[in-house]
Amino acid sequence: MLPLIDATTPRGADLTIDPDLTASWLVAFLRDEMIERRGLRDAVIGLSGGVDSAVTAYLCARALGPERVHVVRMPYRSSSPESLSDAQAVIDDLGCDARTLEITEAVDGYLRFEPDAGARRRGNVMARMRMLVLFDQSGRFGGLPIGTGNKTERMLGYYTWHADDTPPLNPIGDLFKTQVWALARHLGVPARIVDKAPSADLELNQTDEGDLGITYAEADGILALMLAGFREPQIEARGFAAADVAIVHKKVSSTHWKRHLPTTAMLSNTSINDFYLRPVDF
Amino acid sequence: MLPLIDATTPRGADLTIDPDLTASWLVAFLRDEMIERRGLRDAVIGLSGGVDSAVTAYLCARALGPERVHVVRMPYRSSSPESLSDAQAVIDDLGCDARTLEITEAVDGYLRFEPDAGARRRGNVMARMRMLVLFDQSGRFGGLPIGTGNKTERMLGYYTWHADDTPPLNPIGDLFKTQVWALARHLGVPARIVDKAPSADLELNQTDEGDLGITYAEADGILALMLAGFREPQIEARGFAAADVAIVHKKVSSTHWKRHLPTTAMLSNTSINDFYLRPVDF
Repeated sequence: MLPLIDATTPRGADLTIDPDLTASWLVAFLRDEMIERRGLRDAVIGLSGGVDSAVTAYLCARALGPERVHVVRMPYRSSSPESLSDAQAVIDDLGCDARTLEITEAVDGYLRFEPDAGARRRGNVMARMRMLVLFDQSGRFGGLPIGTGNKTERMLGYYTWHADDTPPLNPIGDLFKTQVWALARHLGVPARIVDKAPSADLELNQTDEGDLGITYAEADGILALMLAGFREPQIEARGFAAADVAIVHKKVSSTHWKRHLPTTAMLSNTSINDFYLRPVDF
Repeated sequence: MLPLIDATTPRGADLTIDPDLTASWLVAFLRDEMIERRGLRDAVIGLSGGVDSAVTAYLCARALGPERVHVVRMPYRSSSPESLSDAQAVIDDLGCDARTLEITEAVDGYLRFEPDAGARRRGNVMARMRMLVLFDQSGRFGGLPIGTGNKTERMLGYYTWHADDTPPLNPIGDLFKTQVWALARHLGVPARIVDKAPSADLELNQTDEGDLGITYAEADGILALMLAGFREPQIEARGFAAADVAIVHKKVSSTHWKRHLPTTAMLSNTSINDFYLRPVDF
């Protein structure tokens, strides 16, 4: 599980996972956090048609049973029809509870005030609207929304703040994207979902790797070295392109704020999250 | 600023603030975090008509100038007209930039799928919709949404998760509600806003103190003692009602999850927020 960096891995870290062991631990994590710790049995997942949410649904179905997994498809009017049909393949395979709630009216109900909003703002509105829907659906079922953000996008800050990153539990948040793909194949996620180009589907013909300017394979290799303490020249010396290293470095260092709680002005020695953390006895 | 608990304060902690010093520090905090650290000059505030957002607007106007303070009123169709007119008093007094964006169409654009949703779910949808609007408006101005949650509601968990608690900066999050009132009077917030019964205005005739079952004065006194390490019997021995102590204890201990980042399954020694925190050099 730990990236091994030695003479036998001359380029990057070894990101190979044991998919069977990984799946078992994540199923145990979900059961423990949901049932044992919170007394909840129902998971709500936004199923995008992509691999991250598919893997999350397969893990939840194993942990809780498919009848306790409530997947929600939330297309906007411009979303790709393929996203819907890819999600349907997951629903058919798992036999989980499924619903489609189109967010077009809700999104446009706000965006009518902002006709000039560009693609970035519109995409953020859609992502946050989906979060709002997932939390409400969890309230309906007395369950929890389950997070689907992987480690690569979390490190690169490639997500909408207070949207993709909000669900209380995330089983795949410490897996790089290439590791999610390996786990997906092991879990039996339909091949067309694992093999297609990842996309946020917020704009037409958008792909993650096009947005980021780097492939996931390269980004994961660089991130693993960076997290192991390697500096840029050392990473380049292992054979990664300087331009790729620069992209990763810039994205990681410019998005630390997304991985923090908000900053509160301290006025006492009991400031929440600054001085005060959860004590044991209350 | 620190709660002083000694023989001269027989009941609770001394929650008196020096309002002039407090205002100066919070103005410096806002300038430092906005301008120096982030290079941003525009603040976006959801102005509810209540005292917390009013105090935040007054502080931001002092820190950034009223022309850089963009307040947004976001009524739902059932919101109280008084909320709008109380907010107008702040806008008139400060001379800041103001806009009213009704969230009814956006909220109903989703809730049409959920006609049976009760008041709690509907209130959460409204609170999250307002967050979505504030972040989008910040994108429009190239600014930051400013948080308005006070320490009392943060400790009691009396807010919608991923809504009121999301803005990146919060100047008043370490002030108890009674301290916010004292600061409001000092800043010149209109008396009718300071004196009215606090309300989330998500339901008709809703008041915070009615929802909570305890007055803010009592809650603040109990919270300050609890945070200073006093146990329930010791707090009761200082003259607080056992029922009030029990309410505060229950609310604090059942809402610790709201003051955390989401829980991610750890699979490596570089798990974000678990092992990995922001290093100095990237």
